Amino acid sequence: MFKVIDGVLHVEDVSVVELAEELGTPLYITSKAKLEENIEAYKRAFPDAEILYAVKANNNLAIMRIIAKHGFGADVFSGGELYMARLAGFPSNKLLFNGNSKSDEEIEMGIDCNVKFSVDSLDELYTIQKIAEKKGKIVEIAFRVNPDIDPKTHPKIATGLKTSKFGIPWDIALEAYKKAVELPNVKPVGIHCHIGSQIKEIDPFVEALNRLFDLAVEIEKLGVEIRFLDIGGGLAIDYTGEGAPTPQDFANEILPVFNERKKELNSDPKLYLEPGRSLVGNTTILLTKVNAVKKAYKNFVAVDAGFNLLIRPVLYNAYHRVAVANKMDKEAEETYTIVGPICESGDILAEDRKLPKVEKGDLIAIFDTGAYGFVMSSQYNGRPRCAEVLVDGSRWYVVRERESYGDLIYKQRIPDFLL
Amino acid sequence: MFKVIDGVLHVEDVSVVELAEELGTPLYITSKAKLEENIEAYKRAFPDAEILYAVKANNNLAIMRIIAKHGFGADVFSGGELYMARLAGFPSNKLLFNGNSKSDEEIEMGIDCNVKFSVDSLDELYTIQKIAEKKGKIVEIAFRVNPDIDPKTHPKIATGLKTSKFGIPWDIALEAYKKAVELPNVKPVGIHCHIGSQIKEIDPFVEALNRLFDLAVEIEKLGVEIRFLDIGGGLAIDYTGEGAPTPQDFANEILPVFNERKKELNSDPKLYLEPGRSLVGNTTILLTKVNAVKKAYKNFVAVDAGFNLLIRPVLYNAYHRVAVANKMDKEAEETYTIVGPICESGDILAEDRKLPKVEKGDLIAIFDTGAYGFVMSSQYNGRPRCAEVLVDGSRWYVVRERESYGDLIYKQRIPDFLL
Repeated sequence: MFKVIDGVLHVEDVSVVELAEELGTPLYITSKAKLEENIEAYKRAFPDAEILYAVKANNNLAIMRIIAKHGFGADVFSGGELYMARLAGFPSNKLLFNGNSKSDEEIEMGIDCNVKFSVDSLDELYTIQKIAEKKGKIVEIAFRVNPDIDPKTHPKIATGLKTSKFGIPWDIALEAYKKAVELPNVKPVGIHCHIGSQIKEIDPFVEALNRLFDLAVEIEKLGVEIRFLDIGGGLAIDYTGEGAPTPQDFANEILPVFNERKKELNSDPKLYLEPGRSLVGNTTILLTKVNAVKKAYKNFVAVDAGFNLLIRPVLYNAYHRVAVANKMDKEAEETYTIVGPICESGDILAEDRKLPKVEKGDLIAIFDTGAYGFVMSSQYNGRPRCAEVLVDGSRWYVVRERESYGDLIYKQRIPDFLL
Repeated sequence: MFKVIDGVLHVEDVSVVELAEELGTPLYITSKAKLEENIEAYKRAFPDAEILYAVKANNNLAIMRIIAKHGFGADVFSGGELYMARLAGFPSNKLLFNGNSKSDEEIEMGIDCNVKFSVDSLDELYTIQKIAEKKGKIVEIAFRVNPDIDPKTHPKIATGLKTSKFGIPWDIALEAYKKAVELPNVKPVGIHCHIGSQIKEIDPFVEALNRLFDLAVEIEKLGVEIRFLDIGGGLAIDYTGEGAPTPQDFANEILPVFNERKKELNSDPKLYLEPGRSLVGNTTILLTKVNAVKKAYKNFVAVDAGFNLLIRPVLYNAYHRVAVANKMDKEAEETYTIVGPICESGDILAEDRKLPKVEKGDLIAIFDTGAYGFVMSSQYNGRPRCAEVLVDGSRWYVVRERESYGDLIYKQRIPDFLL
């Protein structure tokens, strides 16, 4: 889906040099074909599972609409994500409202939309009961339980450790279900966990699934019919070229355990998955232009995108492959450090990379930026956020327009007395 | 400027409980009196210096307008900051256009606005020359030089180390001035450095100033009249209660050196300063509401603001004082960890704080969030950005309106074929 023609990087059949000339830089560019390849891989690997796309990874409406059209549901983490997921076309009965800190307004919105809730605390359980009662509704819930499993990933995105802020502690999970069963307006129908993100080993998922089954056996004794077991998302993608498990690798280890242990239950639960990064991560490049090259302590290449648009390198010390998009046929000859325009020393996108000779005006492609890229962007240092483009074969579509300087002050108001 | 009346935190004479009821949460609330106190402290300490407010710290137009009305200039780091600074009322001749990665369009904009440039590389120098020549203008410049000084602060915001991406390396700085002197459309008029941010010791500033004078002596020999020496910003504020140097402390150490060493020069340079954090940091609180309290591995308090609105704790491991704004007269009795609504384990605003008993619905005030607060905010996890309020005595003004869910999709476009 990403290929080289005459030394120029193309997304499908579209030259990124031409896109940069037409639309300016920086630019997030997504391949529709790559996205659909990822979607199909999940569908083939998990034909019977309910797959909920983790909207947090990329909430572009066009991208979400493609995913929704393939029959996936969505995992939303806020009222805003719920709003966007509905607009993108995900049906309400395929939405799970996650989140460790839902406001009363968000809970009311979720109940109005008839979505299922993943409940993070007893405070939240009682709030749902209160609002559902007022509305005369019964709300289907799972608890997010904390299985205390080490997913062996970056600590900031390991979410199922005992010490994490997420979920009901394992030792009181059954107690929580007991409380829920007694409430008239909530109906427990599943169990949810999520152990982290960018996880390269499948063992921790298997371990989590086994723990959910252990708990499910106990919860059934409360008279609960378990309709789903949700093991969350978190499958890694291959940022470095060292490989990462595919959905099929994942299925090969998860499904035999799921099918075998299901026999212990009277219920017939569905497996729920919540992939985000592994659906959208490798579909997208961030294209950025070189403003200056400078020999200093290192060979610095200063580009027009920084951690305002891609915060993963500075926040998680993340690695992204880079290339000089207009010199794909040139030999690497020097070592460069790619830095952004933000006034912080930490604003480094890629360190010590062997590249062809880089000059002002060259285009740098940063790969695998479809997940946790634009969604984490800011206007820091007074920088308007960039455009997003969707490529489909030889056609391309602007799916998010570039912001202007006017957008930096869009919501600002100067009081009369200061005019 | 922040006080307690009947157990409730007030910003000047305005109750934050009433603000939360009126406007909802989260909310950034700024005290105009505190801002003016900080401005006056700088004016008193440095009566003869040119003080350029570092817009990157907080680009709210109302806040910038107050600073501009007191006669300060501004340090801008992008075309967007230049745009906002001009709108806020800073005059062009008091603007310095900084930045390590300026695009041609930004350079053109700066030249059109007749601002001075701090030049970060020779590539930039030649671009300025080329554009200035085309426009028939002479552009006043300083080079940002890298003095290789350790400011003893967080590595991500130490900007004057030899290894940093910023500035012209010290050993070729004189060479750069020689090249500039030969160009017809640029005119060197000063020297600029900036060693970092949140710096608690003044020694590194004195050392930087001395290095600038060493260089100035050499540069004068090229026939350059040195009109300013700019030692940047970076003075710390007191986040923890352990104290921080005041502008007066700063002046007491800087000015004697400046006045003494000025005698070595034929020119009569002005001292330029670029304070950001120390002008706006302690003027503002972030007010956030408790959605849930949960006993798990720790006592977690889940609030409605996370690193989408205040990224300093997760990005720099920064400490901010917190208080329960509606229980200011209650004794601290338990240890709590304040977490946001973002789907990452790193979304922790304050860890292990002794507070009065916290309950759902309580308001948490996070102090000293006027600098690098809202400006670094994002819509991550589908969260609209919050409002900003300016308090002046007993009156308050919304200076940035809260975003709606509609603002999350404001620039998004769905291609026809996906409808």
